[in-house]
Amino acid sequence: MKPIHVGLLGLGTVGGGTLTVLRRNAEEITRRAGREIRVVRAAVRNLDKAKKLAGDLPLTTNPFDVVDDPAIDIVVELIGGLEPARELVMQAIANGKHVVTANKHLVAKHGNEIFAAAQAKGVMVAFEAAVAGGIPIIKALREGLTANRIEWLAGIINGTSNFILSEMRDKGAAFDDVLKEAQRLGYAEADPTFDIEGIDAAHKLTILSAIAFGIPMQFDRAYTEGISKLTREDVKYAEELGYRIKLLGIARRAEKGIELRVHPTLIPERRLIANVDGAMNAVLVKGDAVGPTLYYGAGAGAEPTASAVVADLVDVTRLHTADPHHRVPHLAFQPDQLADTPILPMDEVRTAYYLRLRAFDRPGVLADITRILADSDISIDAMVQKEPAEGEEQVDIILLTHVTQEKNVNAAIARIERLDTVAGKVMRIRLEELASK
Amino acid sequence: MKPIHVGLLGLGTVGGGTLTVLRRNAEEITRRAGREIRVVRAAVRNLDKAKKLAGDLPLTTNPFDVVDDPAIDIVVELIGGLEPARELVMQAIANGKHVVTANKHLVAKHGNEIFAAAQAKGVMVAFEAAVAGGIPIIKALREGLTANRIEWLAGIINGTSNFILSEMRDKGAAFDDVLKEAQRLGYAEADPTFDIEGIDAAHKLTILSAIAFGIPMQFDRAYTEGISKLTREDVKYAEELGYRIKLLGIARRAEKGIELRVHPTLIPERRLIANVDGAMNAVLVKGDAVGPTLYYGAGAGAEPTASAVVADLVDVTRLHTADPHHRVPHLAFQPDQLADTPILPMDEVRTAYYLRLRAFDRPGVLADITRILADSDISIDAMVQKEPAEGEEQVDIILLTHVTQEKNVNAAIARIERLDTVAGKVMRIRLEELASK
Repeated sequence: MKPIHVGLLGLGTVGGGTLTVLRRNAEEITRRAGREIRVVRAAVRNLDKAKKLAGDLPLTTNPFDVVDDPAIDIVVELIGGLEPARELVMQAIANGKHVVTANKHLVAKHGNEIFAAAQAKGVMVAFEAAVAGGIPIIKALREGLTANRIEWLAGIINGTSNFILSEMRDKGAAFDDVLKEAQRLGYAEADPTFDIEGIDAAHKLTILSAIAFGIPMQFDRAYTEGISKLTREDVKYAEELGYRIKLLGIARRAEKGIELRVHPTLIPERRLIANVDGAMNAVLVKGDAVGPTLYYGAGAGAEPTASAVVADLVDVTRLHTADPHHRVPHLAFQPDQLADTPILPMDEVRTAYYLRLRAFDRPGVLADITRILADSDISIDAMVQKEPAEGEEQVDIILLTHVTQEKNVNAAIARIERLDTVAGKVMRIRLEELASK
Repeated sequence: MKPIHVGLLGLGTVGGGTLTVLRRNAEEITRRAGREIRVVRAAVRNLDKAKKLAGDLPLTTNPFDVVDDPAIDIVVELIGGLEPARELVMQAIANGKHVVTANKHLVAKHGNEIFAAAQAKGVMVAFEAAVAGGIPIIKALREGLTANRIEWLAGIINGTSNFILSEMRDKGAAFDDVLKEAQRLGYAEADPTFDIEGIDAAHKLTILSAIAFGIPMQFDRAYTEGISKLTREDVKYAEELGYRIKLLGIARRAEKGIELRVHPTLIPERRLIANVDGAMNAVLVKGDAVGPTLYYGAGAGAEPTASAVVADLVDVTRLHTADPHHRVPHLAFQPDQLADTPILPMDEVRTAYYLRLRAFDRPGVLADITRILADSDISIDAMVQKEPAEGEEQVDIILLTHVTQEKNVNAAIARIERLDTVAGKVMRIRLEELASK
């Protein structure tokens, strides 16, 4: 059978990895796909830099040479960012080409528009590499768990943050110091905002939530809180109480809508996902029939991400002659069957909380705090008062609450912070049991 | 679009679960599949027992009524065992029906014949439920990791064994006592041979190896060793050395062929898979591009297994109009592209070892043992000699070896057992680092 022709947009880390993997494993990939997957052209920014890797592969600096090339069947978009990636993908679709992309930002922000165009044109847009690198989590959710009503999912889907949190715990180090180390090692970018402030994780969570619940992409409604305010004390106190702190992306079907939130989270240390360390990713999915399932692997890097890109190429190759109505739908559910379940505002989210505050070591402090919590209908699961340090007047008090509503906790925190006996702000970290029930 | 018609063979645990899940989640499943998946007939052994669950579903006691029913598109085989399951599946294929099965024994033993018939007839045979219950591991290997040359995989794929080993460790209990408890709880069958002797795991490993490496099913060449000879002392000593004992199914691409083996295995306790406890399953897969990925979930039970059965039904529904040459191949690789890589005899397998022996507490014992090991080209990684118990003359000696060849270890063990200073047999448990390199 004649080869399928692929055009690459971008030959950087992931593009280079994709070319390398396609070449190294050409024989096995062809045995699987039933025909050769041949890269016939690549668009790059810098011809000189790209030539060594490209070998005899024709290069261009104009990406439209690729998306408009009539000989190309599948366009692989690996340049990242919103523009011109969006324009290139839309034009490739308009030209009747299938698209494979690793661009989570693009899919989370413009997925609805892109999938509608692809549907109208009868082409496929595949994006396994956009979430959790080489872990086939899109496929698992979209095809492996189709029997289930998904109740919730929770993922460690930003390797940079997980690396930083793992190091803070292992070394008792402060956030700023570990961030610098991560930048030195290449685990964090010069501008780490997207990673450490939870934005990258929210892109990925948005994509996962759409596929899990059959809703459109709604990145703008995701609650996003990063790890930059975490202190080494919180990491230590959490550990003393039997928990690990992870940056989780959580999507949960609640009574009135869907919770969509990224934030640092305490998890019981005996959960498998609490033990996912370093730059690794993992997604825990709870289906009503299957129970909890977990998917673990490298969430970034040249070849792990290329693994997902090439898997998508094989999928498209296997399916591209199929009747478009019988292909796997982009968002797992048929496009005319998406639900309008609302995303809940953060105030309506229900979870448990870790609260840390500094108080003067005086009689009545605890009574004031516990009365405020009771007034807000918050019940306390555990409370620890630390010994004051030598010569200090203030002590750390740590509280774990039972599950309650975020609105109540915010109200209680505001009142606690106004107490004369409490110094500074209350540190609030959400806590999830992630139990199978 | 008109419903796709399904006939069930068997309405026991998994059959009942399948019917329940299809009914409960009918709306979401239809939204995903693009059309209703309707069970139109079920074959059962006992009509009276089945009636309550079946409701208005037509029943028969003759399974050929289902496989010969011209109104049925997909036959779901859930009766288990080799015959008449094999005959029924072959007849369903001959009748041009797609088949979904959860029968690992059948697939491992007769898969080659079944897939050849299906290929010739242009129908699909799907078997996600045959391995690791609700975990979509077949899909992950067959479609999610197609970019990779799979280097090895290692799975906890028998829940009964894992439950027993977890209890032995948690409670310091003996194998026999825990087995009885597992039988009382329904985790082990009255005749537990298939589970505790590794046979069930070997069926599943055979299936995974075929998909991972593109080789035919070769169950008869799998090395199979169960957990019934493990003592609580071994579990304890392993733990003292920083390891957990798990029954692993391991398939590894070695230089001269493929290792295919099920046996109790020491794993470093810091590995995620070492912390998979109770009746849960997990499969760790090492691909050359993606690195290590892990898949975790319930490996058995009515609804977890039904989750996989129904996912297969959705897959077949989505793909059944596709050109047969463009569907996902049964064994991941195109049927005319299977490799004849040999399965290695166990003697040629290379791994590390835990050896425990009882010796008289006399000078020269260790010298004798270490000389024998050195003669067999086995190097020692760690050695522990226990204190003799009060009034005992004999002591336990535990050795960990570096990676070596099984043949050499067997030869060394035979010589050690002939020493006058050594009492009884040497306990040998294989040890795998399962490191990402």
